Amino acid sequence: MADAPKANAVVGQSGGPTGVINASLVGIIEEAKKHPQIENIYGAVHAVAGMAKNEFVDLGKLSAETLEAVAASPSSAIGTSRDKPDKEYCARIMEVFKKRNIRYFFYIGGNDSANTAYILNMVADEVNFDIRSFHIPKTVDNDLLVTDHCPGFGTAAKFEACALMGDDLDNRALPGVKIDVIMGRHAGFLTASSVLGKQRDDDGPHLVYVPERPVSMDKFIGDIEGVLKKIGRCVVAVSEGICDSDGETWAKKLAEQAEVDAHGNIQLSGTGALADFLAGEVKSKLKVKRVRADTFGYLQRSFAGLQSAVDVQEARWCGRQAVQYAMEHDNGSVAMKRTGDGDNYKVELFRTELKNVAEKTKSMPDEYINAEGNGITEAFVKYAMPLTGGLPKTVYLANYPKI
Amino acid sequence: MADAPKANAVVGQSGGPTGVINASLVGIIEEAKKHPQIENIYGAVHAVAGMAKNEFVDLGKLSAETLEAVAASPSSAIGTSRDKPDKEYCARIMEVFKKRNIRYFFYIGGNDSANTAYILNMVADEVNFDIRSFHIPKTVDNDLLVTDHCPGFGTAAKFEACALMGDDLDNRALPGVKIDVIMGRHAGFLTASSVLGKQRDDDGPHLVYVPERPVSMDKFIGDIEGVLKKIGRCVVAVSEGICDSDGETWAKKLAEQAEVDAHGNIQLSGTGALADFLAGEVKSKLKVKRVRADTFGYLQRSFAGLQSAVDVQEARWCGRQAVQYAMEHDNGSVAMKRTGDGDNYKVELFRTELKNVAEKTKSMPDEYINAEGNGITEAFVKYAMPLTGGLPKTVYLANYPKI
Repeated sequence: MADAPKANAVVGQSGGPTGVINASLVGIIEEAKKHPQIENIYGAVHAVAGMAKNEFVDLGKLSAETLEAVAASPSSAIGTSRDKPDKEYCARIMEVFKKRNIRYFFYIGGNDSANTAYILNMVADEVNFDIRSFHIPKTVDNDLLVTDHCPGFGTAAKFEACALMGDDLDNRALPGVKIDVIMGRHAGFLTASSVLGKQRDDDGPHLVYVPERPVSMDKFIGDIEGVLKKIGRCVVAVSEGICDSDGETWAKKLAEQAEVDAHGNIQLSGTGALADFLAGEVKSKLKVKRVRADTFGYLQRSFAGLQSAVDVQEARWCGRQAVQYAMEHDNGSVAMKRTGDGDNYKVELFRTELKNVAEKTKSMPDEYINAEGNGITEAFVKYAMPLTGGLPKTVYLANYPKI
Repeated sequence: MADAPKANAVVGQSGGPTGVINASLVGIIEEAKKHPQIENIYGAVHAVAGMAKNEFVDLGKLSAETLEAVAASPSSAIGTSRDKPDKEYCARIMEVFKKRNIRYFFYIGGNDSANTAYILNMVADEVNFDIRSFHIPKTVDNDLLVTDHCPGFGTAAKFEACALMGDDLDNRALPGVKIDVIMGRHAGFLTASSVLGKQRDDDGPHLVYVPERPVSMDKFIGDIEGVLKKIGRCVVAVSEGICDSDGETWAKKLAEQAEVDAHGNIQLSGTGALADFLAGEVKSKLKVKRVRADTFGYLQRSFAGLQSAVDVQEARWCGRQAVQYAMEHDNGSVAMKRTGDGDNYKVELFRTELKNVAEKTKSMPDEYINAEGNGITEAFVKYAMPLTGGLPKTVYLANYPKI
């Protein structure tokens, strides 16, 4: 294999923002500056869109202080994009790369981004312009193949855990049914994380529904009725991708029904519709007075000042490691392997082929979901807890012995 | 005035939970233990409901470690209630008080709770059973009279600021229109707090609508169109109590329209309906592709692990001070007076009469709202910023000079 060329590097951030995608960006920048083969390090403004339009910011001259502030900032500091580049789009990018002598490409994102890195590497080969193309994993959904987990997930999992800890205490203080709709169209990892803050036997969420297990409305209502009978209140965590027993998502059914029913300007396609629908069903079928529903929305991926320390450290390390791989390899994706658990939690990084991560995604393993399909197992808690970097403890006094 | 009697004390937490109502509870407990006049300190389980049903927990034997954990826990640790006690309800409470020799009553809550403390004090007088009745202020809405601000507001304000900081960065990374619906049916303090994290000239929220200023749909849409034309994106913070130009809330209009339009099980009465409605209006009238709306819901008052250090300290102090007042006075409400601002931010506590705080609420002063009624002034930032205990800094790089 040829020596690493002396050339410029570009970094892009792709897809939905996370709480630590900027930590990976900083990892790439700080490592790139250590390698004389990398002359300039450019940030592609809005990912592939900036690359095609020749819009870059200089990432090589940021102060150490600024870099630390970037690593602590949520969302994508150089902008992101959901564009899927076609052949012509890639050709434009190649022209820009050639013009600027960009031969190192680092792309932080999910499976689509790994695919983009793979395609750009191929397109470069076709036009005889050697580039080194690397993917750094990032998702809140934790749905990438090969890696043990994804940077971005731990911070979002911490958000869900803190949200449900507070929400369960709120529901204890003012009892009723509370439904929380959580991100994750196909994978239930984030919704499952709602259980991580549970500290008492009767802590909520008492029911958890993930996209991997279809549930009928009858079962959903029956489950809630059962919890209500037992403890007089019920907190439910539901994936936005929850499916009916026929395998179709409730959100889709709801949108179709709304189209038929809608009059005037009222639409049901907004983000709160699923939560409101589920709350309405519970209210009408169980005759419960106090039913509330929240949809956590974008706070889950962008809340400022809330990061998992473990997640930040790993995200930054993945960025640094990608640059190191680029000194030795043509392409690849950075992945994590777990080598220790619990108090001895540890990971190693390794390189995998781009095509191993591109396009496909993974779901929650069966062992993380209970047999009834309405709860999360200890195996998941063991898997996910270390990624949160630790959670606050809470106290509830009203269930202490009465005097 | 008579000496403070040797008797038992009861504490209750009333109305909606906050992030620091437990800090006030701990302040009361730790101070009560210093005064030999107070023999036992009972926690009323679910506020007046527990008092009427004779359901109490013992707060006098909690370890120092447990007390610290209670102070750090969100929501109401001894449960809360929205009951408004009538005459008969009060009579039952008096029987329990007599039976248990409870002569100190501490009630942490909003204006309704101050009223309950006032009424219980009167009822006690009527039956010739002297009690000392004190109110400790608590709201996320910050709408109590007399006091400079309410414990609970600073922590909720920090939540809004962190939420909007992240949300604005998310909107920069993936531009479009983003609408956030924030708690506050009558007072706009919490919605106004969405601006506290702004650090750059073009940071969002770019438009803020509070219940104090009615806005027509035409004005709302026109405002957003103006921001879009100027910077190509727009983040909007809206109070759940936003009113149309005829003074009626949008939420109420929406509920009425939904009742007429609804078929089958779909309801529009859930918490996400207003946000979805506003997003739908923007989408259809401005033909903007990317419009998103979130309703922050209960996270705003109960998120675990997120407190303003200033707010916690003040809430605890108010609790301690109430007990001190009870050694000298028959009744009263604890209030804060600001004696220093900015870097020299400081408050003093003082006692005010229960009836000064009971029932009525306050709105945002005019000077906190801009002339157009769609933004928040520097005067508000100066008022509210110290209460958050400081906010994280963020960096955005994509608007750095292009190279």
